Amino acid sequence: MRIQTYLAEFIGTAFLLATVIGSGIMGETLADGNTAVALLGNTIPTGAILFVLITILGPISGAHFNPVVTCMFYLRGIMNWRDGLAYIAVQIAGGIIGVWAAHVMFDLSIIQTSQKLRAGSAQGFSEVIATFGLLMVILGGVRHRADAVPALVGMYITAAYWFTASTSFANPAVTIARTLSDTFAGINPANAPMFIGCQFIGMFVALAVAKVLFTPQT
Amino acid sequence: MRIQTYLAEFIGTAFLLATVIGSGIMGETLADGNTAVALLGNTIPTGAILFVLITILGPISGAHFNPVVTCMFYLRGIMNWRDGLAYIAVQIAGGIIGVWAAHVMFDLSIIQTSQKLRAGSAQGFSEVIATFGLLMVILGGVRHRADAVPALVGMYITAAYWFTASTSFANPAVTIARTLSDTFAGINPANAPMFIGCQFIGMFVALAVAKVLFTPQT
Amino acid sequence: MRIQTYLAEFIGTAFLLATVIGSGIMGETLADGNTAVALLGNTIPTGAILFVLITILGPISGAHFNPVVTCMFYLRGIMNWRDGLAYIAVQIAGGIIGVWAAHVMFDLSIIQTSQKLRAGSAQGFSEVIATFGLLMVILGGVRHRADAVPALVGMYITAAYWFTASTSFANPAVTIARTLSDTFAGINPANAPMFIGCQFIGMFVALAVAKVLFTPQT
Amino acid sequence: MRIQTYLAEFIGTAFLLATVIGSGIMGETLADGNTAVALLGNTIPTGAILFVLITILGPISGAHFNPVVTCMFYLRGIMNWRDGLAYIAVQIAGGIIGVWAAHVMFDLSIIQTSQKLRAGSAQGFSEVIATFGLLMVILGGVRHRADAVPALVGMYITAAYWFTASTSFANPAVTIARTLSDTFAGINPANAPMFIGCQFIGMFVALAVAKVLFTPQT
Repeated sequence: MRIQTYLAEFIGTAFLLATVIGSGIMGETLADGNTAVALLGNTIPTGAILFVLITILGPISGAHFNPVVTCMFYLRGIMNWRDGLAYIAVQIAGGIIGVWAAHVMFDLSIIQTSQKLRAGSAQGFSEVIATFGLLMVILGGVRHRADAVPALVGMYITAAYWFTASTSFANPAVTIARTLSDTFAGINPANAPMFIGCQFIGMFVALAVAKVLFTPQT
Repeated sequence: MRIQTYLAEFIGTAFLLATVIGSGIMGETLADGNTAVALLGNTIPTGAILFVLITILGPISGAHFNPVVTCMFYLRGIMNWRDGLAYIAVQIAGGIIGVWAAHVMFDLSIIQTSQKLRAGSAQGFSEVIATFGLLMVILGGVRHRADAVPALVGMYITAAYWFTASTSFANPAVTIARTLSDTFAGINPANAPMFIGCQFIGMFVALAVAKVLFTPQT
Repeated sequence: MRIQTYLAEFIGTAFLLATVIGSGIMGETLADGNTAVALLGNTIPTGAILFVLITILGPISGAHFNPVVTCMFYLRGIMNWRDGLAYIAVQIAGGIIGVWAAHVMFDLSIIQTSQKLRAGSAQGFSEVIATFGLLMVILGGVRHRADAVPALVGMYITAAYWFTASTSFANPAVTIARTLSDTFAGINPANAPMFIGCQFIGMFVALAVAKVLFTPQT
Repeated sequence: MRIQTYLAEFIGTAFLLATVIGSGIMGETLADGNTAVALLGNTIPTGAILFVLITILGPISGAHFNPVVTCMFYLRGIMNWRDGLAYIAVQIAGGIIGVWAAHVMFDLSIIQTSQKLRAGSAQGFSEVIATFGLLMVILGGVRHRADAVPALVGMYITAAYWFTASTSFANPAVTIARTLSDTFAGINPANAPMFIGCQFIGMFVALAVAKVLFTPQT
């Protein structure tokens, strides 16, 4: 039934964002100025919650939580455009609610706008690579070890928080939601369009490479 | 046989609390004032021991270690009230023994009362969300990947220590036990009733949402 | 063939000690006085290598790497005393070689004696609890989820490094070997007999409790 | 088809190096002088990405990403020399591209040469042990728990970053690539030949020990 599917995407994206924003606030507040410690405190929870959310919600909605994932499945013919648009709308709404829930949990103003600048070509290239890698992991995981996808995505993001200069957003719904928090994990709304554009570029690269790499050979 | 079941709940909750309190003491003692490092030293062991305890004791007692879990299974008709009350009594007793064992291990006074204030609506809302999430993870895990429940709970708590302002107690037996330790993980007894109340609110929310989300569709 | 079994115990215990000592040196050297960070750098590698060593060597020798484990299996009638003594001798030898290998890798004097005092009843009680827990995990894991034993032991030790004041030696061969390193993970030889005695007390407690908890009921 | 195999080795080695170099830069930049925190931020992502890459690419190319692994399979008669040389060329090329991608992501000069000295017999002995251990893990994993190899390699390297003084390169393609980055994870080109030589010594030791340890007994 429709409602289960949308509820799964909504709750999943909300918990994902509550974790990204909440653990960022907790990390920055406690880390005594050592930003690497704050980032560890942001990374480990994010990787852990992705494993959890994809395991329990994947069987219901596929656990996309991410418009580029939904768009990719549309382009591969697995999803129709009507469902795809509904997924994306629900992901964006869930992400925003998750950010606001984090603000309430940490006793901050609910409505905020991030001032954190994340501009420049290095950030953009980071998002291309981050998204390309994420989608390769999903496509390769689905093809070779479907039961391991929750762990694969959690571990990939754990790595990508550190090997990209942008800390790997790799997700337009996450990017939009993070513009609404002037905390550790925020992003200035002015930088969001570039991030989202680069994420879609990463998606097209992944589709092209996956066609060579993950197509069964005769 | 009864005795096995109760012993499993007792030992499990005792080790859980010994880990929460003990690793909190160790972390705070060694972290040189960097509280985020102390919290990492509290988080990683707690997540790890939950995976261990649920794996080895789950087949015996279900590995609740938590009155809201027991209560939830009662409300879903899986447990009768007599067993449920016995479980809860044993969990509380086990939790207290675990705290005291940690005090002995770290050469502290056994009997203590926490002075750590954890008040306010943000803390309360954190406990609602933390408990709601925990129960969704258990219900979703049991439904879709029962063998992964130990890892799911361990990973969920790893995340929830960081994305909630309360560090996610999500457990009335844990809350009661933690009033008895004036260390890193303690909670002032005056704040315990509010925490426990919010945990039960989280349980009712989880029951309502799970009814929609995890009920098989025809 | 005998030689495989002994070689497995030797290499496994050697790598375990090289990791315990080596990561302790690395952590203390780099942690800039923040001992909790050093302990994280000691904990994560130790948990990881236990998972690895038990997975690859368990099918050959059972991957005891620990005289109390060997002794426990002897007392449960799974091992004869001749094999048991040989195991223990090989574990001690392997542990010592592992410590010396760590010293060579970090360009330290090979032959050392630890000056680190670890005395007092709190330390002793920590070792009783640590060893009791370790053996419960092994017995419960073998009984309920044999394939998970490598992860269970790795995760248990990850937790026990933090929830015990002694950082959980829980192993006489490890204790003896660690007397030979005057580095982060060392222990003064004068404290070793008390540690080992407490580890055996923990073993007897585990045997008694496991008899109730893990015996199949009719 | 050939192209899939080579592409898998290329992308895998590139992502491995992008992670090693990128997370090293991120860690050192943020860690406020606490090198142990930087190394944690280097270790956790590297272990995570190895699990991911070996899971999704292993079924295609075997996921060597490492000339000593390829050479070892050649010596064991599983690979012919023509394929082996092509693998090694692709691994080296992929590693270099990965380093350069990390430089672009972090807005650094693409072309660099490391000044970081890693000389001396302790470093060399570290590489012998690190490589010996890595190959034992692969051979033992393949023999006893083939499905666990991705986790085994990721966990082994997580440990080996800390228990060896060299932080465990254990890979000639990684060594060559890391000469090209004057950042946290770099190595002076003058030290590379010694590292690579010691890695091959570790390989021969592993082959000899594995012959005793992992050969089925009659």
